[in-house]
Amino acid sequence: MEKQNYNHLTRTFQRLSRFDHLYAIAGWDMSTMMPANGSQARGEALAELSVLKHQILTDKKIATLLQAAAQEDLDDVERANLREMTRHYQEAVLLPDALVEEKSLVGTRCEHGWRTQRPANDWQGFSTNLKEVVRVSREEAQLRAEAKGISRYDALLDIYEPGMTSAKLDVLFGDLRGWLPDLLQKVVDKQAKESLIAPQGPFATETQRQLGLDTMALLGFDFNGGRLDVSAHPFCGGVPEDVRITTRYNEEEMFSSLFGVIHETGHARYEQNLPREWLGQPVSLARSTAIHESQSLFFEMQLGRSAPFLKLLLPKVTERFGPQPAFELNNFINLNQQVERGFIRVDADEVSYPAHVVLRYEIERALIDGDIEVDDIPALWNEKMQSWLGLSTEGNYRNGCMQDIHWTDGAFGYFPSYTLGAMYAAQLFAAASRALPQLESDIASGDFSALFDWLKQNIWQHGSRFTTAQLITNATGEDLNPLYFRKHLESRYL
Amino acid sequence: MEKQNYNHLTRTFQRLSRFDHLYAIAGWDMSTMMPANGSQARGEALAELSVLKHQILTDKKIATLLQAAAQEDLDDVERANLREMTRHYQEAVLLPDALVEEKSLVGTRCEHGWRTQRPANDWQGFSTNLKEVVRVSREEAQLRAEAKGISRYDALLDIYEPGMTSAKLDVLFGDLRGWLPDLLQKVVDKQAKESLIAPQGPFATETQRQLGLDTMALLGFDFNGGRLDVSAHPFCGGVPEDVRITTRYNEEEMFSSLFGVIHETGHARYEQNLPREWLGQPVSLARSTAIHESQSLFFEMQLGRSAPFLKLLLPKVTERFGPQPAFELNNFINLNQQVERGFIRVDADEVSYPAHVVLRYEIERALIDGDIEVDDIPALWNEKMQSWLGLSTEGNYRNGCMQDIHWTDGAFGYFPSYTLGAMYAAQLFAAASRALPQLESDIASGDFSALFDWLKQNIWQHGSRFTTAQLITNATGEDLNPLYFRKHLESRYL
Repeated sequence: MEKQNYNHLTRTFQRLSRFDHLYAIAGWDMSTMMPANGSQARGEALAELSVLKHQILTDKKIATLLQAAAQEDLDDVERANLREMTRHYQEAVLLPDALVEEKSLVGTRCEHGWRTQRPANDWQGFSTNLKEVVRVSREEAQLRAEAKGISRYDALLDIYEPGMTSAKLDVLFGDLRGWLPDLLQKVVDKQAKESLIAPQGPFATETQRQLGLDTMALLGFDFNGGRLDVSAHPFCGGVPEDVRITTRYNEEEMFSSLFGVIHETGHARYEQNLPREWLGQPVSLARSTAIHESQSLFFEMQLGRSAPFLKLLLPKVTERFGPQPAFELNNFINLNQQVERGFIRVDADEVSYPAHVVLRYEIERALIDGDIEVDDIPALWNEKMQSWLGLSTEGNYRNGCMQDIHWTDGAFGYFPSYTLGAMYAAQLFAAASRALPQLESDIASGDFSALFDWLKQNIWQHGSRFTTAQLITNATGEDLNPLYFRKHLESRYL
Repeated sequence: MEKQNYNHLTRTFQRLSRFDHLYAIAGWDMSTMMPANGSQARGEALAELSVLKHQILTDKKIATLLQAAAQEDLDDVERANLREMTRHYQEAVLLPDALVEEKSLVGTRCEHGWRTQRPANDWQGFSTNLKEVVRVSREEAQLRAEAKGISRYDALLDIYEPGMTSAKLDVLFGDLRGWLPDLLQKVVDKQAKESLIAPQGPFATETQRQLGLDTMALLGFDFNGGRLDVSAHPFCGGVPEDVRITTRYNEEEMFSSLFGVIHETGHARYEQNLPREWLGQPVSLARSTAIHESQSLFFEMQLGRSAPFLKLLLPKVTERFGPQPAFELNNFINLNQQVERGFIRVDADEVSYPAHVVLRYEIERALIDGDIEVDDIPALWNEKMQSWLGLSTEGNYRNGCMQDIHWTDGAFGYFPSYTLGAMYAAQLFAAASRALPQLESDIASGDFSALFDWLKQNIWQHGSRFTTAQLITNATGEDLNPLYFRKHLESRYL
């Protein structure tokens, strides 16, 4: 009886996690399976569920239970769980039910429209919906900002990456701005001297899919607890017991899908290895979006594009598609370590990727803080792309400011996670390499057991037990240190 | 203000229908997409949602609102909606939350196990789960029986087909028992004299799928509001705005899937044409399972296996699979009007089909009323199969008492709907033929507009506005008359 308040809370959060399960599956279905005319009813159903979840989480009793549970005799995990419960409660209680419902409705409408508006380059139609999303997100940010005593944008950032601020980001990204353009130029110049043989398609979708499945198997994806499907924007969804990753196929170009699958497999393995014994409780959830991205980028960039892994991957590619000049080993490695200034974030190499993130960060921060409006986005996008990458997106909304799904759902504050994740990934890979002296030969021989065990012991199995800073310090001996990312890029590309 | 109680109820039922939407999609996913290890979490999530829906529907305020709304100034549709609301409330309020949750849990567990136990012919494993389902269903039936003052089985039957009783079924099925075995024998003898060329496979799954899609298009399925997928047991699920039908493929035999698709398309077109303006309200729902089956059997049997339709279908088959001797017109028609005593209900022809239904009806009634136990099922199944069709299912559980999904979910009382549906379908087709003198030539030319318009005007667009008896009397001029079914079989097969 001594933990009755805590136990009452665990039952409530267990119930919430079951509704989260239904939300996740219906959301996955919306992006992968749902026919066009199902959209309105689905949007209404998800909004209804959002309101229900919000009502359960912000029930008047919860605040009292949280306070009373804090006085109970809890072990370390239970105390961490209580901390996370409190955080989720505090994030939720700031928002009225009506705003939660409206956010869900305008988000599903904007995302649904985007599915056809993006291929049609229809900025006019898209921006009409996006303005609604921005209006609601600003309202949300305002409420959160007032409660937390921070800026609007920082209040959203804090949801995805607890403790992160735009002041810290300005330092991290300001540093990048100092050395990255120069590094990018050097790498591009260096690679311009090498001749590269382009792969000759077409690459049949079904064969690409089989190769994706082969690679997921190689990377330990559990197919009894997950799937691979197709969506307009790749993602990792579902629930830890049933992880749904997606990709998209282009029959002219096979690497985008293949490395997309490797990326999502990193997310998936994190989810599939979250602490089973705490599932249903907030402490079992992934630590943050940046830590999630650190796992996908660990898989895609640190591991996936390393020379030993590419050497291991090559026979799987030729087994599915046969040999061709582009698949000669050195050329194959160079193809997948190629650095190019391009329009599309998800297709960007790891050297130019931060440029895509910083420009989005600057735009979304100004948008949420009210310094710019939706109508200003295309011009700003074009200006920043010119400045970072020398590319014009004028009139090219499809491959410019309409390329991502994040803003359609009001996920402002998410983008910085990608570059934070890249930094964490580099730091983690350095730590794993120190801990596992035989790592390179393990990778060469296709034995990932020690590496994945290291990730499981240091990241996956902890869920949200520790803060991000604690987790990273425990795993690597220090808090976030962006130097590892710079060193990694210089060592691989210069 | 004068309809405030009624309006309050419509908002509550609108909310319920959104949760029904999520239940339908997560249920569809469970049968079509979910990997094996997702089962437990999904089962728990669905059970949680069942309890929530039950709590909303049985909230103490509902009874008061229903009574007060009955005094308000409602139009005919609103009054029908109130009647259906009251029926749903009364069906639900009889059951405690705990029983609802348990029913959902044991049902998903039994269904999930059945997916692998059936192919493994594992009666032992299956019966352990089924006993739990039967225990809970008997509890449910007992509560319903006490409240309604009728037998346990009749209390379940009444959920699927309001107003139907086992006394009425005994008359209808007793009549069948009188003439059907003789008719079946005559047809089998007649067909034994005709030589039949069997189709030569294999028939590639993907090509079968394309043919299924062609046929759905021919029959007016709206692909912007629905999908075709694969499941162990074919069904029509989803929601009216997004109807999900399924089939299963056997590369040695193509007609089972093709006519399964035609069958489910009948269900789907009913759902896709339910009254849009009332969606979300109980009055918008399909009238009953028997009326639902009447639409699928109208499509599959009355229309689909008629000579003019088969003649229309043949070029679509040869377009996909090329010509072969079995696809000569007369042989093609005979193949699809072939009558054979077989093990599998869903593959049965329309002459022997009622035998499959009556035997299940007799077993499930005895099971629910407590006259037999789960362990008695295999012997009874074998005995009744011997008696009706001369086939032994001894030891062959897979193709005997384990072939259907219905009992796994506790859907006792559903099976009679199939034969009631066949009777309604024959009666409706006869009425449509009287109303549309050009029907046969319309079908021959592939113009179904008048026929589907007749179904829409007479059945689809009414949802649950009328009772089954009113609906059928309005459409055909009389209440259920099984003579049309007998006449149809005699005319097509003798």
